[in-house]
Amino acid sequence: MTGSPGVELRGRETAAAIKEEIAGLVRSSATTPRLAVVVATGDEATLWYVRSIAKAAGGVGVACDVVDLGPAAPAERVRATLERLSADPGVHGVMLQTPLPEGVPAQELALSIDPAKDVDGANPLSLGRLAAGLPAFAPATAAAVMALLDHHGVALEGARAVVVGRSTVVGKPLAHLLLDRHATVTVCHSRTRDLAAVTSTAEVLVAAVGRAGLIGAGHVAPGAVVIDVGTNPTADGGLTGDVDFDAVIGRAGALTPVPGGVGPVTTALLLRHTVTAAGLT
Amino acid sequence: MTGSPGVELRGRETAAAIKEEIAGLVRSSATTPRLAVVVATGDEATLWYVRSIAKAAGGVGVACDVVDLGPAAPAERVRATLERLSADPGVHGVMLQTPLPEGVPAQELALSIDPAKDVDGANPLSLGRLAAGLPAFAPATAAAVMALLDHHGVALEGARAVVVGRSTVVGKPLAHLLLDRHATVTVCHSRTRDLAAVTSTAEVLVAAVGRAGLIGAGHVAPGAVVIDVGTNPTADGGLTGDVDFDAVIGRAGALTPVPGGVGPVTTALLLRHTVTAAGLT
Repeated sequence: MTGSPGVELRGRETAAAIKEEIAGLVRSSATTPRLAVVVATGDEATLWYVRSIAKAAGGVGVACDVVDLGPAAPAERVRATLERLSADPGVHGVMLQTPLPEGVPAQELALSIDPAKDVDGANPLSLGRLAAGLPAFAPATAAAVMALLDHHGVALEGARAVVVGRSTVVGKPLAHLLLDRHATVTVCHSRTRDLAAVTSTAEVLVAAVGRAGLIGAGHVAPGAVVIDVGTNPTADGGLTGDVDFDAVIGRAGALTPVPGGVGPVTTALLLRHTVTAAGLT
Repeated sequence: MTGSPGVELRGRETAAAIKEEIAGLVRSSATTPRLAVVVATGDEATLWYVRSIAKAAGGVGVACDVVDLGPAAPAERVRATLERLSADPGVHGVMLQTPLPEGVPAQELALSIDPAKDVDGANPLSLGRLAAGLPAFAPATAAAVMALLDHHGVALEGARAVVVGRSTVVGKPLAHLLLDRHATVTVCHSRTRDLAAVTSTAEVLVAAVGRAGLIGAGHVAPGAVVIDVGTNPTADGGLTGDVDFDAVIGRAGALTPVPGGVGPVTTALLLRHTVTAAGLT
């Protein structure tokens, strides 16, 4: 391929714009929005992520309670906690952080999060409402993909969008968000035959599988906008995406880096959803 | 194109097999499953359809109450009726028939149908549960498409499936059902550019738009299995599908007729869902 390399779609600018808006809303309100994050794991990377949410919340005037139930919490304790937080008028957003202890079913438990406080769109009712065109919070990661596309002015109406990955937290809600914006949407996954042939039809390609380097240059049409949702740990303790950045950046029209792409926007939108749940927007 | 014309995928055989199974289940049970269909329209075609459901129910030992609220029923009356039927232990299945009076929002009202009785998958929670892989009733029409494909042994794993139409009652739930069976799924709609180019990639093509003759021979890959969900009224009082049957039958590997394809299976599955809701399966 010839031509100039693709634009790097960094998320920090989008995240900063969202956070600035949130901080303004909080300053001009008498209510302090409060997010409760329920954690039941000893996984260090997860605990680090939750601390980063709490820190980002503090930066924009959102209160964040980390409710740590410990890595041995039984399902009933998680459910009771979600019900208590859902009923607490002082809590505006409730998030159930995964992973959970083995045998504790995240989707079932998320049914106990009040949809009005379900700021990470984990309750299946939120997904159903989203699909049915009723007001609902989308999972923050799926919403972050849309925010990045919008921030960079990517046209979606009539565009061919391909989502690789069919998870309930990213791939499926994202398909509905893209459909709602009138894209023609294809969902691929591990059983897709000739993945490269399908992804090469995409004007907008989203990788959300969790397999480092899954998407190479041969998977990408020249000029395509590529959003990398993958966050795979590297041997040196860092993070890498599902897209082979160095191979794809010369072919794509635009590509998000990992880290520094979707991630910061996800956190910002989680806080924005909390501000909305608190009635500030 | 050369080769023999495609197989006509008639629904009556599939419907008969499902009904026979239902009748057997009902005969060997002390419970009479009961379906309540809530109607609020004066539309003759709709009322005819509802009578056909009641008749089919009678044929397999399922009781069917048509609750006619009249074409001027306000939203609150529809909601109260759905809540009453959801709470009635003698009613196992509750269906809200569309169209509804202008300004009465079907999706919002369907939130009042107990998901355990939501035999036509109208409650957004049912759609969300379906998408999240939790037990739920799919809309009968979407389930009928899957039943027809299965009855005729169409392989879905890894297959390219294209759904034309993104309605909450057919296109979207069907996309989830096909994904769940490991097809690679594309959803097209009115804003899709070059529809024929997209639909021609399909090994399994489902038309669910409601526009007579939308899908012609040029939209169909040779040998594709084509399912026509459309039911469009004709000038002579009959029904025609979204697929130009005469043009496509010579090119497709298989094609459902309208009427006599998806329709009879839909009714049979509505009754099967009612039997399941009554605890007979």
